[in-house]
Parts: sequence; C-alpha cells; structure tokens
Amino acid sequence: MSNDLTITEKIFSRASGRPVKAGDFVMASIDRAMTHDITGPLAVEGFYEIMRDEKEKKVWDPGKIIILFDHQVPADSLNAAKNHILLRKFAKDQKIKHFYDLHEGICHQVMPEKGHVLPGQLVVGSDSHTCAYGAVGAFGTGIGSTDMAAVFALGRLWFRVPETIRFEVDGKLGDRVYSKDIILKLIGDVGADGARYKACEYAGDAIRSLDMSQRMTISNMAIEMGGKAGIIEPDRTTEAYVRQRSKGFKLDRGLKSDKGAEYSEVREYDAGELEPQVACPHNVDNVVDVGKVEGKKIDQVFLGSCTNGRFEDLKTAAEVMDGRPVAKGVRMIVIPASHTEYMKVLKAGLVEEFMNAGALVESPCCGPCMGGSFGLLGPGEVGLSTSNRNFKGRQGSPEAFVYLCSPATAAASAIKGKIADPRSV
Amino acid sequence: MSNDLTITEKIFSRASGRPVKAGDFVMASIDRAMTHDITGPLAVEGFYEIMRDEKEKKVWDPGKIIILFDHQVPADSLNAAKNHILLRKFAKDQKIKHFYDLHEGICHQVMPEKGHVLPGQLVVGSDSHTCAYGAVGAFGTGIGSTDMAAVFALGRLWFRVPETIRFEVDGKLGDRVYSKDIILKLIGDVGADGARYKACEYAGDAIRSLDMSQRMTISNMAIEMGGKAGIIEPDRTTEAYVRQRSKGFKLDRGLKSDKGAEYSEVREYDAGELEPQVACPHNVDNVVDVGKVEGKKIDQVFLGSCTNGRFEDLKTAAEVMDGRPVAKGVRMIVIPASHTEYMKVLKAGLVEEFMNAGALVESPCCGPCMGGSFGLLGPGEVGLSTSNRNFKGRQGSPEAFVYLCSPATAAASAIKGKIADPRSV
Repeated sequence: MSNDLTITEKIFSRASGRPVKAGDFVMASIDRAMTHDITGPLAVEGFYEIMRDEKEKKVWDPGKIIILFDHQVPADSLNAAKNHILLRKFAKDQKIKHFYDLHEGICHQVMPEKGHVLPGQLVVGSDSHTCAYGAVGAFGTGIGSTDMAAVFALGRLWFRVPETIRFEVDGKLGDRVYSKDIILKLIGDVGADGARYKACEYAGDAIRSLDMSQRMTISNMAIEMGGKAGIIEPDRTTEAYVRQRSKGFKLDRGLKSDKGAEYSEVREYDAGELEPQVACPHNVDNVVDVGKVEGKKIDQVFLGSCTNGRFEDLKTAAEVMDGRPVAKGVRMIVIPASHTEYMKVLKAGLVEEFMNAGALVESPCCGPCMGGSFGLLGPGEVGLSTSNRNFKGRQGSPEAFVYLCSPATAAASAIKGKIADPRSV
Repeated sequence: MSNDLTITEKIFSRASGRPVKAGDFVMASIDRAMTHDITGPLAVEGFYEIMRDEKEKKVWDPGKIIILFDHQVPADSLNAAKNHILLRKFAKDQKIKHFYDLHEGICHQVMPEKGHVLPGQLVVGSDSHTCAYGAVGAFGTGIGSTDMAAVFALGRLWFRVPETIRFEVDGKLGDRVYSKDIILKLIGDVGADGARYKACEYAGDAIRSLDMSQRMTISNMAIEMGGKAGIIEPDRTTEAYVRQRSKGFKLDRGLKSDKGAEYSEVREYDAGELEPQVACPHNVDNVVDVGKVEGKKIDQVFLGSCTNGRFEDLKTAAEVMDGRPVAKGVRMIVIPASHTEYMKVLKAGLVEEFMNAGALVESPCCGPCMGGSFGLLGPGEVGLSTSNRNFKGRQGSPEAFVYLCSPATAAASAIKGKIADPRSV
C-alpha cells in the first residue's frame, strides 16, 4: 500500500490525530460548523436534548460555530420569523462569535468570503452544498441537523474517510463556456449517485485557470453527483483569496494529493470540447448540450444562488445581455450571493443595468433556489436557473419545469425569451 | 339649498350625467378600474360568472382597466404563482391595454405615475387604499372584487354620493414633520370610523404647500378614518405632475369645491403645532406624539409602501440617517414604491447608502406592509413601519406589535434601535 495520500486523507489524518486512509473510520475534530435558518432550529433543539443532564449547556466552542440567515429572508412566513427569533436567542445565549442576521448573504458565499474557511480545514454545515468550501481546499461537507447538534456539543464527528474520484480537466474553455458547464457535464456523465460518498477532486489545467468565483461553482455542485466533498488543490489563486480574508495566512505547500495517491477513479476531460450545458427537468444529471434544448420557451430566469450569484457571474450575464431588455413575458430575478458581492455589483452599475433591462434585483439571499421563499413557478411554467437543483417542485409547483445553466446561458435566454446558446446572441 | 358643490359632487355629477348632491344615489360611469394580484382573481371569476350567458365575454373597455402585480411579487406561494398565471391569461385574452407584470411597482404609485389617473376622474380599485388618487384630484375609491367584476362587465357602478369632511390645515410644518404626521393626527382625532363613507377633503396652506409625494401619503390614508375618498383640490402642483404623464393635459380650473359648498363637518388644524406622530398597536387611530413612545425598543423597520415609498420619502430617511448604520439587533427593509422611484433612488446613491447602513433594499412591491409576503414579524416582536396599517397580525404574528410613522421617524428609530424623535438624532 502506497504511503502517498490524497488531500482528503491528509485532511482527515490531521483532524483525527493519526494517519488514516480511505475506508478508515475516524472520530474527527471539526474546525468550523455552519448552520442556517432552515436547519439551525432543529440542531439547536437536538443540542439541548443532548445536554439535558448537563449543568452547563454550552456549545463546544462558540468561536467555531457560524450561524447565518439566508434561506428565508426577510422572514417569509410566521414559521421563518419564529426560527429567526430562536436562532438569535441561541446565538446570544451561547455567545456565538460569528452570527450573521438577514443582512449578510448566502452561507456558502459568506463562509469563505469572511475567512471562516481555510485550506486543509474540516468544515461541516447543515446544508448539502457545504461541499462548496472545497474551492478553498477545505474538506467541507453537509450534515444533518441532528449530527450538527452533536457537533455543537462535542466538536467532533465520526466519518468513514472517503475514497476520491479525480476529475482531470485539461485544455482551455471556449468562449462563453464556464465552470458551471464543466460541473454540469461531469454530473451528467457520472450520474446523480455516481460519486456517492466520494471526495470529488477537481484537477487539471482548466481547473487551475479558474478564478475563485468559478471554482466555488464547481465545488458547490459535487453533492449533485453524490460527492461528500468537492476539493480543488489550493494554489496561488487560493492563497491570494484567503490572505485577503485571514491575516497572515500562509499556504502549506504540502496540502495536495501526492503523486502516488490512490483514486477510486480518474476521469479525464478536454475543456476545449465542452459546449454550454443545460440540466433538464427533473434531475441535475439530465444534462445536454445547449443546442438540444435551444428554443424552449421560458417564463422565468433566476440569476443568483451560492452556485452562481457572485459579482463575476452577474458581470458575465450583464455582458451577454449587453443592454438588451428581458424578453416580453419573461420574469428575471437577480440576487447577488452576499452583501459584499451586492456592493460590487452595485458599484459596477450592474443593479442599474439589470433593473433597466426589466429584471428584479433583490437583496442577498437564497431566493427562488429552494422554492420555499419567493419567485415560485406556477403549474406548467418553465424556469431557467443558475442554481444547483432542478428537482420536481424545487422552485414551486411540482408541475413546473426547471432547467439549470450558467449565468451566460441564463442571460442569453432571458433576452430571447427561450433557452439560447450564449455564443449566438 | 345652495347650488355650490363640493369637488366630489362635481365629479359624481359628471360621472352620472346629471347634477347630483351628497346623499343622491347614482349609477356612475367609471373612468378607470384597477385591480391587482390579490383581489384580481376573484374579480375575474366574478366577471365570467356575470357573463356566463353572453356570447362575447368581453370587458367593457380594455383600455380603461389596469392590472398590476404588487402584493405577492415575486410569487411567494404556489397560490400567488397561480393567481399571476390566471391574471396574465385574463390580460391577454381581454387585450387589457395596461397590464403590468411583477416589475412595475405598487398599484397606487404606478397609477398616477403612469398617467392612468387624471383630476376629476372617478376611479375604482379593488384595494382599500385607492383613495390615494385623491392626491391628483380624482375621486378614487376602493371596491370589493365582486363589485369590480360588475365594473369589468358594465363600466358602471352605483354610489351614494358622499358628504364631505373638510380638513383645513393651515400654517407651516415644523422641521422633520411631514404629511404623514398630519394624516396620523387627523386619523387619531377623527377615529377609525369618524369619516365613514365621507369624502375627506384636505385643504389649507399646509396642504397646498405639499409636493405630490407628500400629498399621496395624506390621500392614501383617508380610508383609515373610514373615508370613501381623500381629495386634494388640483392646483398648479397637480397640473405640473399630471402634464408630465398625460400629454396635453389642461386642468379645469373649476374643478374645486365652490365657496358655498356644504360640508358635513369642517375641522381646522395648525400645522405649526404638529409634533411627529406615531400610531400605536393595534389601530391606526391609536395616535400619539412621538415623545409618548420614545425609547420603545424595536426589532424591525420597514421603509416603503404606497404610503411612503417614494424617492422623497427615502431621501428624507437617508438624510436623517446621515451615513449612520442601522442599530445592532434591528432589521431595516427598504422598498421603493415603483420601478421609476427605484431608479431615482438608485441614481441618487441611496441604494448604496441604505445597503451600507445595513438595510436590505428590495425590488418594488408591497413587501411587509400586508404581512402576507416577506419581512414578517414574529411573536413579541416590534415593528416600526411607514405603511398605512398596524392591525393585529398585519405584518406577521398576531402577537407582534406594529407602530406607524413617517420616514424621518422610521430612519431616526432605525439608527437608535428604538422609537426616536427625528428632530433629536
């Protein structure tokens, strides 16, 4: 057996205090734990249940827990308002250091943005897209609220160290083809459960050339093929990003998969061959080249989410729209992923551009992504979305149809009123 | 009996084709009919019920019906999404000339803004605050969805011509006292049903000196004392506003209450004596000087609505805040009343100011005003709002508390975290 390790094995070896390899069961120390307004209340309830016989009902480390409101903000139901009250109280009672009320943005954007995630960390979040933190070279993974309750109490959690699927994406992406197209292609190939409980590792020239924004997109969606994480080896791009947010941070150059590391599978791609991709209803792995669905009439376009709601995403979309209005009969909802991203978007004049085009620009939040808040689709309606899921009923009616795509494809389609190839508008 | 008429009697005389006075029953021609996404679907259903035996199921005049989406935008429930679909189809089938999808803004802002309301017109809307159109010298009044169904079919509706209460407000408003304070004062004095089925006519120096934005606030809230309308005699200010929106408009100088017109009551006020006013839970007529409730801790501030969501309102609020942040523990939600107002707010740098202060700025819609959409208050929470109603449960939980005030008072309170006198911050 080789002594060479995957980056995932290295992270778990450190976190569990002994050298471990894929397949080992470990009790690992958690570096950061994130919860939000949907899954947080149950975690809090579970925590107090666990602590019921303890005199001091205190969380393991109030400096390592991050609580944010993003899914139902501003409160869109009485239940949401009550959940917010409950979590505000918990944050106050437990002296949670990093508590963000409804103003800050989407958890998966805010976590790396505010320096709460560092390369090599083991980070859990009670949200399935916690794998997003792989973009900064952390092992981020989603856990349930009851597991989160245990983490709140103990700061530890058991794992089976996952095997790694390595995706080697080389070559150069074509014009108006992005990391969203890469990840949709991968998911389409591997299937919704093809990477079940695997660490997905994205490597190759094409990945290394991506900026942090595009890396976040690709890491974010690892869970859509069943991945436990979606890691990109941290490099100078990562280091530059993290340094701006975490004073004095220095990247450990050894934090990468060793040459002889063992993978359960290695898949190779040529980015240059990739067309813009679209995931069709009602599964994320139902992926086709955009040409296959071109011309499909749409009712709504959602540009935003933790997957594609950053400044770069909105800038790309605005460039594709190039001052042209949203097509008659189409609604377009634009939501920057965080307050910081919103301010960049605003200062670049993009809020004005989108509003002038007839779009609605909303304050940072998850918005229509989850279908529980606003921007819901009615029966028979077709939505095009830059978010990460298109399950039946995900964005409203179970009789609606959700297609997923990149911001460029969303923008091209918004001005055409039907699914369009961003290279042709 | 005098031959002198109130402006209301003049409007009904024209609309019913014969000279009429207060107390007369008339069948009046409707100049414009407005409906929105909450009350529209029932009106449509009623319309088709009325027309069930007609071969041509056509509305009386598709050029005189205005349909807007504002209460639940973007669709915040499956029901809302379905209502939107139904109204889009109705607008298309009936060739409704002025149909505004979710992008345009709040009905009572959009109607005058787009020139759909002219001085002297009789305008009905299936929304209680249709009295807002009195600001441009129209008799605007709210009707139920079933009455609206009849209007869709016939273009006529019966009325008992209302008596008029005249409010003479003279003198000069003090620093940081506004029309919202005037109308709250009036409502507090008269009571929630003190002007029941009366036309409220606002007159005097203080009223004449108000810009259109502040006039809209005062007309908007006539219904809160039971008023059927809230008219301000059209003058040069009105004419200038309407001319920008309705080409070639010329004001009929006779469109005013005659010297000897009969009023059911005349009430006189000195604007100079007025303090900033606050309506306390749970009734709009539970009004006190701000000093009486100063220091009351608040959880949320809502700056917006058809009552106080215009550029001038937001500008006033920003001036009061003067770059200071929203107090810790307080949420502030800012929503311009229409797309046009939003663009003014944006271009003046106010979106940036509010976002920098920690507020959320949302796209034009009714927002938290009605408590059905977003920005809901939880049990025990206290909200301060520039909107027009504070009934139990109006903005979320029936165990929440809503206070109403001017944008200046809202802004002062937002930075203080408690109800504050805008003259003291």
